[in-house]
Amino acid sequence: MEINLEESRQVVQMARVKAIQLNVNANIAILDTAGHLKAFERMDDAFLGSMDIAIKKAKTASLFRTSSENVGEYLKPEAGTYGMMATNDGLVGFAGGLPILKNSEIIGYIGISGGAVSEDLQIATAGAEVLNQN
Amino acid sequence: MEINLEESRQVVQMARVKAIQLNVNANIAILDTAGHLKAFERMDDAFLGSMDIAIKKAKTASLFRTSSENVGEYLKPEAGTYGMMATNDGLVGFAGGLPILKNSEIIGYIGISGGAVSEDLQIATAGAEVLNQN
Amino acid sequence: MEINLEESRQVVQMARVKAIQLNVNANIAILDTAGHLKAFERMDDAFLGSMDIAIKKAKTASLFRTSSENVGEYLKPEAGTYGMMATNDGLVGFAGGLPILKNSEIIGYIGISGGAVSEDLQIATAGAEVLNQN
Amino acid sequence: MEINLEESRQVVQMARVKAIQLNVNANIAILDTAGHLKAFERMDDAFLGSMDIAIKKAKTASLFRTSSENVGEYLKPEAGTYGMMATNDGLVGFAGGLPILKNSEIIGYIGISGGAVSEDLQIATAGAEVLNQN
Repeated sequence: MEINLEESRQVVQMARVKAIQLNVNANIAILDTAGHLKAFERMDDAFLGSMDIAIKKAKTASLFRTSSENVGEYLKPEAGTYGMMATNDGLVGFAGGLPILKNSEIIGYIGISGGAVSEDLQIATAGAEVLNQN
Repeated sequence: MEINLEESRQVVQMARVKAIQLNVNANIAILDTAGHLKAFERMDDAFLGSMDIAIKKAKTASLFRTSSENVGEYLKPEAGTYGMMATNDGLVGFAGGLPILKNSEIIGYIGISGGAVSEDLQIATAGAEVLNQN
Repeated sequence: MEINLEESRQVVQMARVKAIQLNVNANIAILDTAGHLKAFERMDDAFLGSMDIAIKKAKTASLFRTSSENVGEYLKPEAGTYGMMATNDGLVGFAGGLPILKNSEIIGYIGISGGAVSEDLQIATAGAEVLNQN
Repeated sequence: MEINLEESRQVVQMARVKAIQLNVNANIAILDTAGHLKAFERMDDAFLGSMDIAIKKAKTASLFRTSSENVGEYLKPEAGTYGMMATNDGLVGFAGGLPILKNSEIIGYIGISGGAVSEDLQIATAGAEVLNQN
């Protein structure tokens, strides 16, 4: 199953609400399972530099069907995966990119950037789980 | 003045409503006056190839502070502006990219792609004028 | 001989003065004979889309050691130079890119964009000839 | 508020004066708050390789609204932000990129490259603070 626009908007909204709650100006990117952009919002005063990071966190997650943080394990210097980081137009391997689940199935990906890494992860998590809760 | 997220969402919504009314699956892109993405939605079943077109219509409008269609006048073969079309990572000079007005001032840009050119223009117009009507 | 910074600033100033006189908000680019940027100014309210065009006009002139307009003769559809326009990261073949002369020798290149083509040419000419007049 | 051309030229001049004083051949880049080039000068004998560095230092500063050096803190290997450095077409995280202040508000960004890092920083600082001193 593939995330639709109505679901994407719900995910964006949950992420935005969490970002406001944490006082973070976030960039919020939603991708389908093919890695194509489905929805995007740049909150007021969010860093311009975080747009690309948000999209690439979601993209990185989509490329390996896991969190961007998990992909980061393979990008660490000690992993010896020389050159992997620069593949796919640049992977981003730290927290804030997550699969979006529905009935425990991956239907899309969310990428968040704008706050501290731990905040980005909380915001992404809020969005990623909203469709999976019933 | 610069479009904010709340206004961007209103513009997207008006465009989406018009697209639904016209039975078009559109890509909807909102840019600020500097040409940076502020909000984006890809409606279900919209062409993947129209994402880049929607964004580049809005970008082209932002680069010359007019409609993408007006820029197209300078891109016609008989204009003799050899190579202009390929500047700025590729201009897109047909209808569907418009300035977003508020109190008759440009605060951002909208780009639409997915339907016939005349439909894209109607959808873009619906979005571009919603903040200017009161 | 190669244009130096002091000379580049004189060229920019003459171009700026002419642009103000013509009421054009211009982008002004100065390149050395190797095609590398030496000086640049974006006048207030100049089109963002004209930055790339100004630089590429100067670049195009530098690549063939003549005016961008002359290069345009080889880019016309009827010239049959298939693909030439997209070489060198994109040539721009209309007026506004000129060699900068000193003692009738080419020491650099100027590119102007922001007004009508005929205005851009006047502005570029003002800059291109200032070092050649004594 | 957004830096204008007259202010940009003052910033460039102060940076140039400081560079001459330090005997550094610098590249000097001024960007507006959206990250678009406003003014540029390459001093005679400045390294060609420093042009891109100067512009990217200013760009990096603009993307995160702080100094390029501060952004560098997030790019250190031990920060674990795998791949962040390659986002946004390449961040540059060492000293020489600074916000330009006026009445303590950010109105643009300056990037300097050509000398030792400590020299680049002094030159950038001279430019960044000139409009904030009265």
